[in-house]
Amino acid sequence: MAQQPFLITFEGVDGSGKTTQLRAAAAQFRACGRQVLETAEPGGSVLGLEIRRILLDSGSRLTPQAELLLYTASRAQNIRELILPALAAGTLVLSDRFTDSTVAYQGYGRGLGAETVRELDALACGGLAPDVTVLLDLDPETALRRRAERNRMELEGPAFHQKVRAAYLEMAAREPERIRVIDGQGPAGTVAARVWDILKAYV
Amino acid sequence: MAQQPFLITFEGVDGSGKTTQLRAAAAQFRACGRQVLETAEPGGSVLGLEIRRILLDSGSRLTPQAELLLYTASRAQNIRELILPALAAGTLVLSDRFTDSTVAYQGYGRGLGAETVRELDALACGGLAPDVTVLLDLDPETALRRRAERNRMELEGPAFHQKVRAAYLEMAAREPERIRVIDGQGPAGTVAARVWDILKAYV
Repeated sequence: MAQQPFLITFEGVDGSGKTTQLRAAAAQFRACGRQVLETAEPGGSVLGLEIRRILLDSGSRLTPQAELLLYTASRAQNIRELILPALAAGTLVLSDRFTDSTVAYQGYGRGLGAETVRELDALACGGLAPDVTVLLDLDPETALRRRAERNRMELEGPAFHQKVRAAYLEMAAREPERIRVIDGQGPAGTVAARVWDILKAYV
Repeated sequence: MAQQPFLITFEGVDGSGKTTQLRAAAAQFRACGRQVLETAEPGGSVLGLEIRRILLDSGSRLTPQAELLLYTASRAQNIRELILPALAAGTLVLSDRFTDSTVAYQGYGRGLGAETVRELDALACGGLAPDVTVLLDLDPETALRRRAERNRMELEGPAFHQKVRAAYLEMAAREPERIRVIDGQGPAGTVAARVWDILKAYV
């Protein structure tokens, strides 16, 4: 595979180890001499961080539609402000969550529909798709026990998180070339080796 | 016209007198014994106020897409949290800006397209349309001179505001039954009399 900028995304339920694995992969890419930008959704840009604060701390009873629009606004801004300039400069971009999260959580989990989420995303994000997506698959019960920090999504019941996990697996079955399912169980180093086995092709 | 809850919106370029006229109309409706909710976009709900702060004070270079999504998110939340409950309780709702603003500013002014804005609005806002819209028409140059406070939109050049005014007039020509054009020139009391001449049918 020729060296070129890539957009690589990390997906999974809360506590599946996305952030840890993203950092490990970033370190390995850097050790191979690649320039790497690490980003996250919601977040990244200044606007993204403000939206992240509203979404995760929100005491206001956010409607599913408003929630979807805010996640998409954060992504639109992040793409224009950070991701596209980085890719243009030849930098590899690793994102902790991307469109697949919105499809899984808002489309399936909140029941707004995968097509609605994808249409909105196409409108707002101009169809930028990841080159490869690492889906860290883990039982939500196990995943949630890993997390000390609790946010708004984690206050949802187990049925919600099971629905999100099932959505991710269905999405991976539809796009097996792009979405690579990694077993998220076991020590972080073991999982990191599984992830690198996929990602080393993108150095 | 039978007494029923109504959604009445006030539109126009910045400085056209919307807020002053909305307050005057609210006072007249109250004097006629109607319960009135006054709201504004962006704003209204707690989320709306946070989005308003981000939008109007934004130092981050907001993309047109992110801006559109934020305005629509504010509206989605405001409708569910404040407007629908008020209408259900028989309260008359007066809104300082609504969907027409997003069509005029983001659809025409920013060039995202009226259809894009309307599709997004239908998705997010479930098709709630005003019963009547008061469009305060005023030359943007005159309107801007009226304003002491300057916000982000007002930093746009005169061509932008002329485009917005033209968009409003085109929208009114397409929906003359709903969008009533009021000459915004002259003392506030004179304009208020013109507005009330239309709105008295909605007591």
